[in-house]
Order: sequence, then structure tokens, then C-alpha cells
Amino acid sequence: MEYNFSNKLANLKPSAIREILKATSDPRIIPLAAGNPSVEAFPVDDVRRISSEIFAEMPITALQYSVTEGYPALRESIAERMKKYGIGREFDQVLVTAGAQQVMDLATKSLCNEGDTVICEAPSFIGSLNCFRANGCRLVGVEVESDGMNIEKLEQALKTEKNVKFIYTIPNFQNPAGVTMSLEKRKALYEVAKKYGVLILEDNPYGDLRVSGEDVPSIKSFDEDGIVIYAGSFSKILSPGLRVGYSIAPQALSAKMTVCKQTEDVHTAIFNQLVVSKWMKECDFDAHIEKLRNIYREKLNLMCDTIDAKMNGFFTYNRPEGGLFVWCKIPDGIDMPEFCKKGIAAGVAAVPGSAFMVDDSQPTQYIRLNFSTPSNEQIVRGIELFADIAKTY
Amino acid sequence: MEYNFSNKLANLKPSAIREILKATSDPRIIPLAAGNPSVEAFPVDDVRRISSEIFAEMPITALQYSVTEGYPALRESIAERMKKYGIGREFDQVLVTAGAQQVMDLATKSLCNEGDTVICEAPSFIGSLNCFRANGCRLVGVEVESDGMNIEKLEQALKTEKNVKFIYTIPNFQNPAGVTMSLEKRKALYEVAKKYGVLILEDNPYGDLRVSGEDVPSIKSFDEDGIVIYAGSFSKILSPGLRVGYSIAPQALSAKMTVCKQTEDVHTAIFNQLVVSKWMKECDFDAHIEKLRNIYREKLNLMCDTIDAKMNGFFTYNRPEGGLFVWCKIPDGIDMPEFCKKGIAAGVAAVPGSAFMVDDSQPTQYIRLNFSTPSNEQIVRGIELFADIAKTY
Repeated sequence: MEYNFSNKLANLKPSAIREILKATSDPRIIPLAAGNPSVEAFPVDDVRRISSEIFAEMPITALQYSVTEGYPALRESIAERMKKYGIGREFDQVLVTAGAQQVMDLATKSLCNEGDTVICEAPSFIGSLNCFRANGCRLVGVEVESDGMNIEKLEQALKTEKNVKFIYTIPNFQNPAGVTMSLEKRKALYEVAKKYGVLILEDNPYGDLRVSGEDVPSIKSFDEDGIVIYAGSFSKILSPGLRVGYSIAPQALSAKMTVCKQTEDVHTAIFNQLVVSKWMKECDFDAHIEKLRNIYREKLNLMCDTIDAKMNGFFTYNRPEGGLFVWCKIPDGIDMPEFCKKGIAAGVAAVPGSAFMVDDSQPTQYIRLNFSTPSNEQIVRGIELFADIAKTY
Repeated sequence: MEYNFSNKLANLKPSAIREILKATSDPRIIPLAAGNPSVEAFPVDDVRRISSEIFAEMPITALQYSVTEGYPALRESIAERMKKYGIGREFDQVLVTAGAQQVMDLATKSLCNEGDTVICEAPSFIGSLNCFRANGCRLVGVEVESDGMNIEKLEQALKTEKNVKFIYTIPNFQNPAGVTMSLEKRKALYEVAKKYGVLILEDNPYGDLRVSGEDVPSIKSFDEDGIVIYAGSFSKILSPGLRVGYSIAPQALSAKMTVCKQTEDVHTAIFNQLVVSKWMKECDFDAHIEKLRNIYREKLNLMCDTIDAKMNGFFTYNRPEGGLFVWCKIPDGIDMPEFCKKGIAAGVAAVPGSAFMVDDSQPTQYIRLNFSTPSNEQIVRGIELFADIAKTY
């Protein structure tokens, strides 16, 4: 039988990252393509202990149906912690989701009709772009500069594009570009969104992973008007495999997203929520974050230092102040997809930058390198392999 | 700020069941409204042991990102087990999902444009109906008789309705009606779907929970043409809180649903998949099912016997051969919603039948009673409370 797929899905290809991940499950390939937390970053002993306590103390709660909004104690812990960052007003609510990815989906489904417009950074995270596409949205990209979105171009887009429902941004250590939006631009973005009556979807999976420089307040911390949906995640700080994330959004929006979540997965797996909840209550969150920052500071610097030492200027990049990625430009005139293929053949995988383009048929000279997944030895060896390829041009 | 929600979500109300569940979190209310597995039904010791083994043997695997399709060993175990039921051909693939609820969502999103038609049983499971609505589908209901969908009316609908993408059915112990589709009707449904080039979404969460009568082959077991998407679940036989379900569908369909899943939640929580996988490999699945059948046989019969003894004909119903629900009609002329409200006031909750109607503004005299959640004492007391209310009319 020939299947007729929905228009919105018909042209959607599998995420290049996840496809590359599958191709590189070969342990001989050095994994600079993934976005996995470092093996050292998992608080395995804590999770093991907490898990055994849960099954000893409240096994039925851990296995039974639960409410769509999320485990109440976890929602409270999240709300409490986010207050530290000035996030959350009286009108806001926490909704626990299956990773932050689901926040993108619930927000889009709740707000957008097919053909509506989402403004996003160009380049941006492929998982979110594909989510907007899978909901039938039209994407309009606004250039990301070294201090975040170009706000003039954003306002131009808001003036001219039709049916814009929200602006999607990753202000901290943007994926893939690695840049952090300046405070000035965050404020300007908030004001321009307010002026044009458009919501903001602020995605902040990497915010805690700053390894240098100063924290910048989140856009949500300015939100007195109820125009920001904040997406948070435990994937990069505790475990991605547990699939626990959350949104903080005005009540009316949160209620609609909750109805939408009921229809997608009923609720986020409750054992997983209990683990996160107990971990937040019983473990030293800040000490753990400090540990992660130390791990990633070393890896980030090792990768950048090795690029500086070995690549002879073949990769140009801005050293990020955190996150998991280094966004590298290879020289004009070199075939970027071919360069990536040569990498795989030599034993090192990176993600072709085209994966992150709003229009992925656009040519680009960028590739995305990840430093959290590989060991320190693999980071050095991976860059050396790319350096060997670079010498062949 | 006033929010403009998408057309498909704007009119969608929270699931009445989940809202009633929230209202009845009051432990003084006897829970005949839920659909939770019985507390006795959870293999707590097995899950506790397996969980501790997972965190001892493969903690990083349990906490790290995984592939969207699902944990390979679990997919194999599911495929293997379903062969027992004649389910799965060379062209089929298993996709692990966040409960069977996500199968409905992925199938709908992959196949339907806004305004496309889904044919479903009337009445049907509110979670699925809301999922189709949340994807912008038009619902056309076909009457459920004591042996399943009326096939003449189904064919009539297929002849006259436009853009029908699939037929949604729960052939075993239908939720809410409790009826099982006859073999003859299953075959006829398959043939009529094939004739009109329409897919079938077969939802089978309760299939293992037969307490009397003979198993009937699933519709998917006839599927030589690749027209059936089968939705399976571990929620009713192992744990709903783990949120692990699956689809078995032709490869091209499964691939599209996988892309769609990437954009919704990346993958199903991997620890949860490991638990199910080890449980399937190490524990006696059939013995566990037998245990569940004994628990539910007793509860089903207790509820029906108590109705027969106490309700004096006020509830009319067909005794189901399995599943979790008894679908009861109250006498014409009695205000059904008011009857349910009087139940809550007296201390017993049931779900108003209107929740399951394709058009929920239609009047109905039905209510749905669940016998898996309450204790045996609560079953008897709950029916007695309803009997007291019945006497006031």
C-alpha cells in the first residue's frame, strides 16, 4: 500500500543529528557529533540510592498513573529554584514535560495553526526546527550574531511576516552557534515582542553550564506581561535518559499545554519525576552544577586549545562561555558535506551545519563540534584527524 | 495578555476523566471513575530488583540519551511476543512510545491534515478522541453494538465521508462500552478498510485482561496488506506510570512516526524501557497475566453481582468478558450528569458517559464504572451508594 502522509510530515526528514548518532554508534568513530552529557557528569550513586528508596518507600506511586501537570513536589521544587533566577510570577505555572523537547511541541500545537509563522534564530537547534515544521509552521530565520539575534532584523520580520505566533530563542550558549545573547539584546527582544504582541519561547537547556564570564538574566526574568514561555530541562544537568523537562508559562497557556499533553502521553513517567524531585530535595544542586562546570570547562578549553594548536586556522570559531558545542567555519570553497564525510571515513564525526539551517538546502561552511561526549583523549585525537584532513586541501 | 490558541486546541477541554480523577484525589471518594490498575496488580518486587540491577550494571545506559525507535532488545522482545498472536509481518516494525496514547498522536500527526476525518467507535476512549481533535481531525462516530462496530454503518461512512484517513477501534473490552468485536466483524472491518483504501488504528490496551470466554484474533493478525497500525501498551499489565507502549506498523509508516516522535520527546525514557525489557526477559509474563486475570475476574464479577443484587435494574449493562470497565445505562428520563454529581456528593465517583461521545453535547444515559482501582470493599460500598441514590428517583 502507498501511504499518504500529512503535508506537514511528508517532507520532514529524520533529524540529521540522530541519524548521524545512529551511524556513529560504531565505537571506533570519535563522537564529536552528539550532544550527550559526559559520562563523568552523571550523579550515578545518588540516582541509584534515590531509585532504591523510591521503590522501597512508594512503589505504587512510582508505577501508577499520575496527573498531567506533573508531580506536585517536583513542580514546587522547580518553582522554588527558578525564583533564584527571578523566573516565575504569580500568573505563571510549572508544567512537567518529557524533556524540554516536549515544551516546544506543546507550545507550538497550542498556539499555531498550519501555515502560521515561527521566528527563530538562524542557525538554530534542529530538534526544535523540526518540531515547528512537524506542526505545520512556516519558519523565518533571523541571523544570530556573536551577541545573539540581530534585533533590527527581528523587528523587520515582525513588521512584514504574517501570523507570527512566537519568537524561538536559545539565549545561553546557543545550539549550534555557541553564542550568548547580551543583556541589552534580551531586553530589546522582550520589548519588540511586546510591541508586536508576539510571544517568546525561551529555551534554556544549557544555562547552568557556564564555564567562564558572567551569568546574564533570562528573558523570562523580565516577564511582567505574561509573554514568555520558558523551557527548562534536567537533560544536561542530571540525565537526558530520564526525559524530564518543564515549562514555566502563564496559567492560561500552561492549561492549554496541559490539555495538549494529556493527548500526547497522559503524563511524564512518574518514577522519573520522583527521582528528579528527591534529587532536588536531598542532593546539593549547586555543588553538582559546580562539578559539571569544572568537567565542561576542561573539555571546552581542551577542544578549543587543540583547534588553536593543530588546525592552523582551518576552523574559525568564537570560544563559547559554556554549553556543549563549538561552531566552526571551514574555509570558503571547501565542500562542507564532503569534509564531514571524510571525517567519518577517518574515524571522527561532526554535524554538518546545514542541519541547523532554517532552509537546509542553503549552503553553509559551518560544522558543529561537541566536547561533552568524547573523552579528553578523543577530543585531541578527533581534532588531529580533522587537522590531517584539512592538510589535504 | 490575551492568548490566541490554535483552532484545533481552542475548544478542547481537559479530559473529563483526568479532571474527575483530580477532583476525586480525595481519598474519601470511592474511585469508580479511574482506570488505574489494581494496587495488587503491580509486580513490585520484580521491578524493584530489576531496577536495582539496572543501576548496578548499566547506569550510564539508563541515564544517557538513546535512539528514538526504542531500546533494541525491548523491540525484539515485543516483536517476539506478538508473534504468539500472529501479529507482525516482514514489512512491520516496532516503535517504542510513551504509552499507547503516543501511538494515537504519532499516527494522527503523520497521516492527517487539519480537517481530515477519523472514523471511530461511538462511544470511544476520550483520550484518543481528544488526541484526534488536538490534531485538527473531524470525528465521525459509528455505533458500537454488543459485538462491535456496526459494519454497514461503517461502510456507509466510508462511502460518504471525505478525506477519511483511518478507522480507530478498540476491539477488545472496548473503552467505555466493554464489548468485544466478533471475529466476523473484525474480518469485515479489515476488508471494508482495504476496499476503501483506509488505514486501521487498532488499540489493544486490555487484550490480555480477558476473564471469561475465548480470545479473538486481533485485526492486525490479518494484516497482509500493511493497512493496520497496532497500538500496544504495558500500562495495564505492568505499570502505567512507566509510560511505555508501542506501535507495530508497516516500515514506511513507522519511519514517519519515528521522525514525528523525535520532534515530540526525542525518545521514550530509557530506564523505563530497560525495566520493561528485563522484565519481559527474566519474569514469567504468562504467569503474571494469569495473576492479573484472577484479580480482575474477581473484581469484575463482584461489581456485576453487586449491581445485579442491589441496583434493582436501575443500571442495565452487558457483563464484559474482560477489560476494566462496566458501561451502565440509567433509566430514560433521569438526568445523568445530576446522577453523577449526586454520586460524588454521596462519596462515589463514576465518569459521565458524555465524556466518551464523539459529540459530547449529545445526551446520553450511560455512565462508566471501573472495577480495577477500588478495593473489593469499595466496589460493594460504591454500588450501594448508587443504589441509595437510585431509590430517590
